[in-house]
Amino acid sequence: MVLVETRNPLNIGAAARAMANFGFARLRVVNPYDVAFREARSAVGAAPLLARAEEFPSVAEAVADATLVVGTTSVGHRELHHPLRRLEYGARLMLRRLPQSPVALLFGCEKFGLSNDHLSHCHWLMRIPTVDRALSMNLGQAVALCLYELVRDPKAAAAEHPDRVKPASAAAHEQITALWCQALRASGYVNPLTARSTEEKLRRMVRRWNVTAHDAPVTLGMLRQILWKLGRTPAAP
Amino acid sequence: MVLVETRNPLNIGAAARAMANFGFARLRVVNPYDVAFREARSAVGAAPLLARAEEFPSVAEAVADATLVVGTTSVGHRELHHPLRRLEYGARLMLRRLPQSPVALLFGCEKFGLSNDHLSHCHWLMRIPTVDRALSMNLGQAVALCLYELVRDPKAAAAEHPDRVKPASAAAHEQITALWCQALRASGYVNPLTARSTEEKLRRMVRRWNVTAHDAPVTLGMLRQILWKLGRTPAAP
Repeated sequence: MVLVETRNPLNIGAAARAMANFGFARLRVVNPYDVAFREARSAVGAAPLLARAEEFPSVAEAVADATLVVGTTSVGHRELHHPLRRLEYGARLMLRRLPQSPVALLFGCEKFGLSNDHLSHCHWLMRIPTVDRALSMNLGQAVALCLYELVRDPKAAAAEHPDRVKPASAAAHEQITALWCQALRASGYVNPLTARSTEEKLRRMVRRWNVTAHDAPVTLGMLRQILWKLGRTPAAP
Repeated sequence: MVLVETRNPLNIGAAARAMANFGFARLRVVNPYDVAFREARSAVGAAPLLARAEEFPSVAEAVADATLVVGTTSVGHRELHHPLRRLEYGARLMLRRLPQSPVALLFGCEKFGLSNDHLSHCHWLMRIPTVDRALSMNLGQAVALCLYELVRDPKAAAAEHPDRVKPASAAAHEQITALWCQALRASGYVNPLTARSTEEKLRRMVRRWNVTAHDAPVTLGMLRQILWKLGRTPAAP
């Protein structure tokens, strides 16, 4: 990651934090405003990654060892002479190259982005798919998005605590249904003439709740207590 | 988007900016630190979205009209009682619900995230796939990532300026090859004994350059100038 002429120390810090968040290690800066870089380096928590950050006087030197150089742009009104790719696709191309050799990703200064001179060192450009192209993104956020797109894993699916969301068994659902029916009968909710259809409705409703294995005994305990208060001994399940 | 007890006005501003970047309109805040909210509202450029932001005294009131409430967490050391989903998958579930009814996405305060009380209003939780779960993300960056994942389009592919990267024709490649050969012969680079194989190597090399339609005439012009300086009139292509 190469930050070119960044002015705001908070942005250098935010970029470094995003790199740490997503496991990227090599930060390079080109002509940062001296005070900004010194301030960022001394910020709390930023220590290891920023301390190892390398400083270069020019883009050419900062990207010298990379075989692919990608510039970021918000494409305001500028005429572009490079192929422009959306982040979703550009990141895929970068990932294809990364196992073989270093890839440099350039971010320009907050106010003007990368200059045409900086861009001329790039193989192609990448833009974040914002709705309004004229409205540029905050630098720290843009860095975070690009790095996230590089590490995101579409196959990383579903619940991470599957044990916590283990659904209750059909038997548990049926126990709950039975106690509910008893409680409703005891409360006079159930019209004896339609009792059968009420029970069926209730059975379907309880299934829609998707009670978890963890919640089932708790729910049964609550219902037993209600039945006890209604003066009924719960029927054995 | 619901920001709960946010303390730093810069983060409220950054969240609003990311919402504008990605086309989200409804920002709600729960118990923001008064000064922070007032400062953020008066920040440059933040006007329309922040001016329309609604303030609520509790999470329950802020999410009342949503049919799906999702909390964000960095999962430091806390015991979770909710299903936890990675952003890539969680965003898909949110998108499935969004066309039908409002979805609320909650972000907690910078220091402690969402409390257990806040979390109890959520249907499930979402985490950003950082490498080190203990290292929390910057709030503005986390907001930007979640919104980006909701709008990203994996099918939005390739170059956006295809006209700019139109490749040169085989004829143009061959013209370039011919002039290169003439220039190399004129410079004494080509050994007459191996001329034929040199020409073949050169032809393959020129094809690897992937000259664009735009660059081809420029390249030919350069070569013609070099040939002229070498005292050769370029052979007609």
